[in-house]
Amino acid sequence: MKYENHCVNDIRIAYVGGGSRGWAWGLMSDLVSAADISGTVALYDIDLQAARNNAIIGEKFNHAPGAKSHWNYEACDTLADALTGADFVVISILPGTFDEMESDVHAPEAYGIYQSVGDTVGPGGIVRALRAIPMFQVIAEGIRDHCPDAWVINYTNPMTACIRTLYKTFPGIKAFGCCHEVFGTQKLLASAYADKFGGETPSRRDIKVNVIGVNHFTWLTSAQYRDVDLFPVYAEMAETYAETGYTKGKDDNWMNNTFDYNQRVKFDLFRRYGWIAAAGDRHLAEFCEGQWYLSSPEAVKAWGFGLTTVAWRKKNLANRLRRSAALLSGEEAVTLRNTGEDGVHQIRALLGLHTMTTNVNIPNVGQIPNLPLGVVVETNAVFSSGHVTPCMAGPVPMNIYGLIARIVSEQETLVEAAFNRDLEGAFTAFVNDPLVTIGLHDARELFDKMIDNTKAYLTEYFD
Amino acid sequence: MKYENHCVNDIRIAYVGGGSRGWAWGLMSDLVSAADISGTVALYDIDLQAARNNAIIGEKFNHAPGAKSHWNYEACDTLADALTGADFVVISILPGTFDEMESDVHAPEAYGIYQSVGDTVGPGGIVRALRAIPMFQVIAEGIRDHCPDAWVINYTNPMTACIRTLYKTFPGIKAFGCCHEVFGTQKLLASAYADKFGGETPSRRDIKVNVIGVNHFTWLTSAQYRDVDLFPVYAEMAETYAETGYTKGKDDNWMNNTFDYNQRVKFDLFRRYGWIAAAGDRHLAEFCEGQWYLSSPEAVKAWGFGLTTVAWRKKNLANRLRRSAALLSGEEAVTLRNTGEDGVHQIRALLGLHTMTTNVNIPNVGQIPNLPLGVVVETNAVFSSGHVTPCMAGPVPMNIYGLIARIVSEQETLVEAAFNRDLEGAFTAFVNDPLVTIGLHDARELFDKMIDNTKAYLTEYFD
Amino acid sequence: MKYENHCVNDIRIAYVGGGSRGWAWGLMSDLVSAADISGTVALYDIDLQAARNNAIIGEKFNHAPGAKSHWNYEACDTLADALTGADFVVISILPGTFDEMESDVHAPEAYGIYQSVGDTVGPGGIVRALRAIPMFQVIAEGIRDHCPDAWVINYTNPMTACIRTLYKTFPGIKAFGCCHEVFGTQKLLASAYADKFGGETPSRRDIKVNVIGVNHFTWLTSAQYRDVDLFPVYAEMAETYAETGYTKGKDDNWMNNTFDYNQRVKFDLFRRYGWIAAAGDRHLAEFCEGQWYLSSPEAVKAWGFGLTTVAWRKKNLANRLRRSAALLSGEEAVTLRNTGEDGVHQIRALLGLHTMTTNVNIPNVGQIPNLPLGVVVETNAVFSSGHVTPCMAGPVPMNIYGLIARIVSEQETLVEAAFNRDLEGAFTAFVNDPLVTIGLHDARELFDKMIDNTKAYLTEYFD
Amino acid sequence: MKYENHCVNDIRIAYVGGGSRGWAWGLMSDLVSAADISGTVALYDIDLQAARNNAIIGEKFNHAPGAKSHWNYEACDTLADALTGADFVVISILPGTFDEMESDVHAPEAYGIYQSVGDTVGPGGIVRALRAIPMFQVIAEGIRDHCPDAWVINYTNPMTACIRTLYKTFPGIKAFGCCHEVFGTQKLLASAYADKFGGETPSRRDIKVNVIGVNHFTWLTSAQYRDVDLFPVYAEMAETYAETGYTKGKDDNWMNNTFDYNQRVKFDLFRRYGWIAAAGDRHLAEFCEGQWYLSSPEAVKAWGFGLTTVAWRKKNLANRLRRSAALLSGEEAVTLRNTGEDGVHQIRALLGLHTMTTNVNIPNVGQIPNLPLGVVVETNAVFSSGHVTPCMAGPVPMNIYGLIARIVSEQETLVEAAFNRDLEGAFTAFVNDPLVTIGLHDARELFDKMIDNTKAYLTEYFD
Repeated sequence: MKYENHCVNDIRIAYVGGGSRGWAWGLMSDLVSAADISGTVALYDIDLQAARNNAIIGEKFNHAPGAKSHWNYEACDTLADALTGADFVVISILPGTFDEMESDVHAPEAYGIYQSVGDTVGPGGIVRALRAIPMFQVIAEGIRDHCPDAWVINYTNPMTACIRTLYKTFPGIKAFGCCHEVFGTQKLLASAYADKFGGETPSRRDIKVNVIGVNHFTWLTSAQYRDVDLFPVYAEMAETYAETGYTKGKDDNWMNNTFDYNQRVKFDLFRRYGWIAAAGDRHLAEFCEGQWYLSSPEAVKAWGFGLTTVAWRKKNLANRLRRSAALLSGEEAVTLRNTGEDGVHQIRALLGLHTMTTNVNIPNVGQIPNLPLGVVVETNAVFSSGHVTPCMAGPVPMNIYGLIARIVSEQETLVEAAFNRDLEGAFTAFVNDPLVTIGLHDARELFDKMIDNTKAYLTEYFD
Repeated sequence: MKYENHCVNDIRIAYVGGGSRGWAWGLMSDLVSAADISGTVALYDIDLQAARNNAIIGEKFNHAPGAKSHWNYEACDTLADALTGADFVVISILPGTFDEMESDVHAPEAYGIYQSVGDTVGPGGIVRALRAIPMFQVIAEGIRDHCPDAWVINYTNPMTACIRTLYKTFPGIKAFGCCHEVFGTQKLLASAYADKFGGETPSRRDIKVNVIGVNHFTWLTSAQYRDVDLFPVYAEMAETYAETGYTKGKDDNWMNNTFDYNQRVKFDLFRRYGWIAAAGDRHLAEFCEGQWYLSSPEAVKAWGFGLTTVAWRKKNLANRLRRSAALLSGEEAVTLRNTGEDGVHQIRALLGLHTMTTNVNIPNVGQIPNLPLGVVVETNAVFSSGHVTPCMAGPVPMNIYGLIARIVSEQETLVEAAFNRDLEGAFTAFVNDPLVTIGLHDARELFDKMIDNTKAYLTEYFD
Repeated sequence: MKYENHCVNDIRIAYVGGGSRGWAWGLMSDLVSAADISGTVALYDIDLQAARNNAIIGEKFNHAPGAKSHWNYEACDTLADALTGADFVVISILPGTFDEMESDVHAPEAYGIYQSVGDTVGPGGIVRALRAIPMFQVIAEGIRDHCPDAWVINYTNPMTACIRTLYKTFPGIKAFGCCHEVFGTQKLLASAYADKFGGETPSRRDIKVNVIGVNHFTWLTSAQYRDVDLFPVYAEMAETYAETGYTKGKDDNWMNNTFDYNQRVKFDLFRRYGWIAAAGDRHLAEFCEGQWYLSSPEAVKAWGFGLTTVAWRKKNLANRLRRSAALLSGEEAVTLRNTGEDGVHQIRALLGLHTMTTNVNIPNVGQIPNLPLGVVVETNAVFSSGHVTPCMAGPVPMNIYGLIARIVSEQETLVEAAFNRDLEGAFTAFVNDPLVTIGLHDARELFDKMIDNTKAYLTEYFD
Repeated sequence: MKYENHCVNDIRIAYVGGGSRGWAWGLMSDLVSAADISGTVALYDIDLQAARNNAIIGEKFNHAPGAKSHWNYEACDTLADALTGADFVVISILPGTFDEMESDVHAPEAYGIYQSVGDTVGPGGIVRALRAIPMFQVIAEGIRDHCPDAWVINYTNPMTACIRTLYKTFPGIKAFGCCHEVFGTQKLLASAYADKFGGETPSRRDIKVNVIGVNHFTWLTSAQYRDVDLFPVYAEMAETYAETGYTKGKDDNWMNNTFDYNQRVKFDLFRRYGWIAAAGDRHLAEFCEGQWYLSSPEAVKAWGFGLTTVAWRKKNLANRLRRSAALLSGEEAVTLRNTGEDGVHQIRALLGLHTMTTNVNIPNVGQIPNLPLGVVVETNAVFSSGHVTPCMAGPVPMNIYGLIARIVSEQETLVEAAFNRDLEGAFTAFVNDPLVTIGLHDARELFDKMIDNTKAYLTEYFD
């Protein structure tokens, strides 16, 4: 690439899933907000028109107030076209449609299994992974063939299975998975600090944490701000708000918000285990035994978080489609917003424009010594010129080792099964899931139904 | 010790729990059946009279038809007396009485939790461990102070927690735990071989297996007889008898037998995971998610195994007490029987009289590389002069890694909590148990009740 | 295979290097001495006539006094013919001729480098490995293609490089390497015991040892006979005989014997490191810094061992050729002798006829946790039906870790270089060798000469 | 501590060895150059007057042109006084005097052993470690008793042994060792980049490297500037300057400089191993077999580096003493200079004022998975609020594994021996050193002489 005056001006980014309405605009916003990089974004999407629309919208971002750099956008007809020559690949796709997700999330409810998100683990996450894995095999093969040296950033869920698939398909890949869930817990810790000591709330980036676990089920084994160990501070918060939840700074009717939660799950986990679970409560709940936080809609409400319905997602999509049209026509002007995502900063770090340490999903090369090598874990890593170097996270503490190890086992079993197009193997993962507490017979019935519901996107398994 | 003509004649064995009615007589029988060792057995029991009775009964074994060696028996007033000068220590105690066990096994039934044994894991196994651990701390201290070089053989359940306690208290201890559950699976494999190929049923000792896991939840990752890989043979058996169970050679009304099982659990696990679970079905079921095999008495019956009631144990104890009196008075003559246990052969091996390879419970020093170091695991080991050397069992296969790792985590959490006399920590282990599928609130209520029921034997936790 | 009355009667053994004069006759003797196995030995040798002669001699062994079983011998024209259908493969070849070995052993003497054996490490061992590795690649490919399930027993030196090559070429191979060097140290320990306590000298098989290290540089970290720890016993012996050496039971003029040694090297290593080096002194010396034991012929003599000249080997070969003719013609009758090798017993164990624990060379799967995985190490292993299971040897003690790790590094570098036909890489291994203490310039000169001397057997590197 | 406006104003630093003439002034300069920290430095030195003088000189630094912060200096009578209340402890001492160092460096020359530095490994480094270890035990005990939560920064050589001693004495210590040797190699890589691509020479901080090894024998397994892999760039440099050395930017008569070197050793190591050795050639040479680079003063000269004589050090000390007097009297004004050391920036990072990644010496917790746990290694680590988190360096490449592992073994043996006050054990480390190529007899003689020469500082070993 070409470096001039501490800027890089000819970066090529392939964006797989580039027709997205919403997430894509966030990335566009982050890109033009970075003064020291510019180049071309090649958009690829199975919905080519959507990619074309985003190419037009993307161009508008170059002229939004506050834009500091310029990016060309191309909509590509094929994955190969998009990948060829790429320095970076961004993957953010929906494996299937919201119809499949409707089955993922809601079909289990007939068996008393409630899922707050349904895209990571649980019955929904597992079936979603079965759809996603063959797609990611294709993407990995494309990267291997067209841009083997590119850095690959994945945002798609289920994160662990997707990243594992990339490395299993093309071991030489330079891929990592980004997730902002830990950031929220850093912010909560910043609030805990400010509540206790007064003064301004620290930036979440100044809350230094040791991250350990798997995506959406990460834990902090240390947390510090300046010279203050935040564990006792957080312990106090967890005791104080154990029953009521902590909602400061949120609007009163937060419970209307399908995505919100009041940290009660997080506090409960802390009070039992002594370690800080570091993801949204909606995610954390899905990794725990089904009777703990998700036994019924009432229980969920009592624990202070929401069940995200797919009906809501569909309605929201309709809104986003409308907004896309408005942006396209110029009816609505594009505007920059701070997404809070680290992706663009990670790209800048990999280019050598700065160095940063943040949490990331990559294969275990020993950063968590008591989990198997090769499985995908989430820990901190240093991003610098051409390297993502994991930080030693240390061993998983023994009292949460079982919680995490069973997920690792489930994910490995699932990916292996998907690679073998082996639904029996996938069922083994399914019945080992913490939410599947319904006995073997019912589990089989549910699994078969969910596979049947989504079989249009599972053709590889039936050839 | 004194070796003469390939015999050792002055062995001193301390037997903790030496007042036992039943198990002790088996050991006595095994000892006099071994021609090449003799010496003294020091019996210690909190029921001193029981130990004294067994000293008398033991002496009678020297004169039983078929006895090949002579053993002196002493009943000791104190643990220290029994241990002083011991070359070997045998531990086989009941942590508490059958009244405590009644709570362990049956109190959870009110919450829909059924336990087939209740002495290893599950609510019952956990509370039993809380009683046993302080006792084993005392025993380990005694060994450290009075016979630090002795070999220590434990038979007490919960095996994993007991062995862990011995090593945690006295890291220099030379202890291992014996269990015959794997033997039964070797016999089943021998039957599978004979059923398929005809001819005599092989001896279980000739069924060579690779053992991996934790006590009562061991798995075989290879099984071979001569040049025949037994996995396909067992696979055929598992398919054939998946629904009916395998009961050949058992009397027709085996279901009356509280200890029996027809291998359906084992076959089901094999068909799902592809590895041979190697313990009795009653034990295996307790390590699995509660809804799989233990959801109700009817389900248990359908899966072909029995729930061992404590009422039965109490009745059986009464029988054994009667038998003790009969043996003592001479009304009944002592007779030798082959217990099938390896203990005496292990003693002979440690003395250098032969070499043997068998399964054993000891700390992980790397024999299972993907489980944490230091935790107690069950694998094969070579017994030879003065050494128990674990065989490399290899990593736990990924699809059962979660099942085993969560038990390891539970046990470590439990032992740590017991050492800290921390019932909150123990509750954390409790709710992580696969059988505790009842939600946090009910789990707390049940835990508190079970602790209260057995508090007479938990005084250390309330000081 | 066919089992009848605890015998197996249709075993097929492929013998690569089957034209050997000497070693082959030992194997023949061992085979007919085993009552419970019989079958066919397929002899393959690049000297076909030698194989044919041995087929005739082999048949004679069936009729030797004391023969208990019957073996058919076939001389095969091709490696493929010999391997096809084999249950076992025995490899015992000479990589090159004694002319090449003359360069290996004696060329370095011009630079002041003396080698007592010259076939394992040191300049000679390295160049020998360069010749052997391509040969073992061919053999491994043959096994992969013609008898992938056969057990492969290697006796060829350099053992570590040969076994590593087999696994690197065909990862699914079931190969191990046998070496009797440890046996000699077991015998020495038996003598030490008898010297101290009187009575009969124990059998070396009853001296139980923990073996750790690499072939010809193995160490014992425990040694026990019955209930006696032999370390203090050996320590006494090492002190007593530190200066004089220990020659009891040897004839007076042992120093005439090019293969003999008086244990002074072994005693010196023990006195410094506290661990028992367990190979012949001639081998041990070659793994140590060149100035320690091999600085000059005079130093070697003072340390009580001999330098095996290749002139002697050539003379000896002439004798063996004469003997071959005599056996063939019947001038000399074949007679059984106890070779003391474990090979035939290992075969019997793998067939399930008995179980044994002995030392063996196989890849590290964790039996030595502080050496890299995959490298070939020597430790104990259990031989039983269809399995060679390594025993946990534990970590290499820290004070000898460097001595062993540098050899591991050298061997890995060497094998990697040989696979890449990269003589520069091999030179890197060469200058890292403990005997190559001559500076980089001289080392290069010597290396080039040795390569040139033996280039007829190194053609793969010059294509 | 007290944070105000992103500054911390009440830091207390204990400086052990605070009477230093030279190094102390550099630290003082670095401290007043940092705008965001201020506080007190407690100087402790066995030469109390020297500490007092430095307290006066330190105060002058507050008023030097360019000073941005203010530091109070106290000279303390006892170590305990200095340590009490410390937030940070800096250790930079001379273990013994230059008279001892004269023996360390020059006594071996009589045996043909030349050392370019003599303070890390080699005969000199080993004997120096024997003196330093008991001193560091005392310091560690002081920290444990007086400031257990302080961060401890060591600069004293031999670094590895000193840090190992701190952790072995007080396992809870938060200590790390700093060394600037890697920086020089980063600078060399920056030059290589500029030479090839033109333009400004990059800052060494922008040369991103993966550091692996032990102090003064570190290696780079990756090196990158922006998007450029520097390995091919360095390979070109190594080829071009293999014979002449690389001296650009140095004054012509660099060979006069006892500390200089022209990179020939580094280039030679790269050409053979393919990895970048990352320390000054004077240090690197001492870790290699004695005949490679240090066989004679002539060889050293030919390899382009200097042997640092202790005579020079003594003369230099005289100069520094004169300078101390001049600074004290005011004859010479104190001036700020950029030392290039990272120490003060590391302190700022630990306080949460910024985050940085740099190389550091700490115990191996898995950052180098194929070296033993617990040994002190040098890799990168992230410095942030209250944490030094090692980066995964990955396994040592197999062709240099032996070179590093033997040093690890030597150091561990040495520290263990020193803790046991066991000179025999230390001798074992001594004869394993790569420079000790003189045979066992001469080695013993030399060792005894060197011990005798320095016995005034080895009294602990003779009690």
